[in-house]
Amino acid sequence: MKIARYRKDDAITYALGATVVMEYLNKRPDIVKGVIIHPDFRAEETKEKINRICRDNRIQVSTEEKPFNILSQKENCFVIAVINKETSTLSEGNHIVLVNPSNAGNLGTIMRSSLGFGIKDIAIITPAVDPFDPKTVRASMGASASVRVELFEKFDDYKERFGNNHFYPFMLDGSSSMQSTPIKENFSLILGNEATGLPNEFQHIGQPIRIEHTSNIDSLNLPIAASIAMYEATRNNYI
Amino acid sequence: MKIARYRKDDAITYALGATVVMEYLNKRPDIVKGVIIHPDFRAEETKEKINRICRDNRIQVSTEEKPFNILSQKENCFVIAVINKETSTLSEGNHIVLVNPSNAGNLGTIMRSSLGFGIKDIAIITPAVDPFDPKTVRASMGASASVRVELFEKFDDYKERFGNNHFYPFMLDGSSSMQSTPIKENFSLILGNEATGLPNEFQHIGQPIRIEHTSNIDSLNLPIAASIAMYEATRNNYI
Repeated sequence: MKIARYRKDDAITYALGATVVMEYLNKRPDIVKGVIIHPDFRAEETKEKINRICRDNRIQVSTEEKPFNILSQKENCFVIAVINKETSTLSEGNHIVLVNPSNAGNLGTIMRSSLGFGIKDIAIITPAVDPFDPKTVRASMGASASVRVELFEKFDDYKERFGNNHFYPFMLDGSSSMQSTPIKENFSLILGNEATGLPNEFQHIGQPIRIEHTSNIDSLNLPIAASIAMYEATRNNYI
Repeated sequence: MKIARYRKDDAITYALGATVVMEYLNKRPDIVKGVIIHPDFRAEETKEKINRICRDNRIQVSTEEKPFNILSQKENCFVIAVINKETSTLSEGNHIVLVNPSNAGNLGTIMRSSLGFGIKDIAIITPAVDPFDPKTVRASMGASASVRVELFEKFDDYKERFGNNHFYPFMLDGSSSMQSTPIKENFSLILGNEATGLPNEFQHIGQPIRIEHTSNIDSLNLPIAASIAMYEATRNNYI
């Protein structure tokens, strides 16, 4: 299969590693263009599953080593899937809104938590990291196959479409604490950039929330803050 | 200053980046052996602070480029501190217990959350990643300067010293859900390895807990699970 180093403008992206590839084959075989197996891959049961799903869905499979040298340096990776990128449109309901996220791994980790807590819609306000980056796909453990991600040029564009949602911007100086604020359904949990957080104007949007913690740290890591927010917003579903 | 690539057996480790270095200078100047400033570092105010603290504490400062080529490849790093490693002994009280953690960045992220939620004691059951790894120190954003980390050869060794704590092993099939289980003070939140979780025998230790989530994902990422556990265990401090 012809493989080149990933670029943002490509029509395809790559799923690296058996777990991530299996997620795409199970959830979205329609967008899997091909699967490449490393000659040294020894997990026969997984290989058999891959071959069966690919046969059933007429997906090309090849066994070769070279693509691994191009796409995967240090990682313990023996299977690659070539994925057609597909843009999504958000559904009504509960959303995560990420304003200018800049780290591919963080975005993937947020996708994984978000799918875990049953929040399938993620809005991203640009400029932002590429949600199709193979590093994002990998960090998501394949959750990227199941969440809907839509890019918006400005927060106002998002607000215009989903203005009826309850907006909860997460800010270090938010006026309510997460620990004592019940989150209403049809929520938008809004989080800012890793280094800079949300711009000040979000103090006047919806109900700004702070996750209380000691003053010994400046802030929580972004995927941690986002995941605690999702955990708290959905906790009543599990009680 | 004489600098070599970090090895686990060295008596020193490195803090990379101004934020992390400032944490060590502010919290633990006594273990900072030296500070190296990149000739291109332009943040004059930070530079002045570094020089002042180093002067007051008789810490050597040098301005040179070479150590950055050895220790820091891609990162946006203009200050390095050389840190004397110091082993800690856990205090009584609330603990995080990590059984065989394997990823340096994850361990650092857990330290950051742990300090954030006021849990300063982390037990690590070996084999495990090196808690002094510069990648751990960096991911912790310098929280590594303020938490106590103690290594134990076996979980039983930990249990012998802190058997009066309330043990909460986090397992995918834990019998109580996090969302509905109040955590008692003097807790030990116990989490397993990234890939394999906790061994089955932990089903019979204390009160096993599952963080409920949809079946769309296999598990949460380790630092996410650990941070949700800490958030939940300390939430009453903030209400």
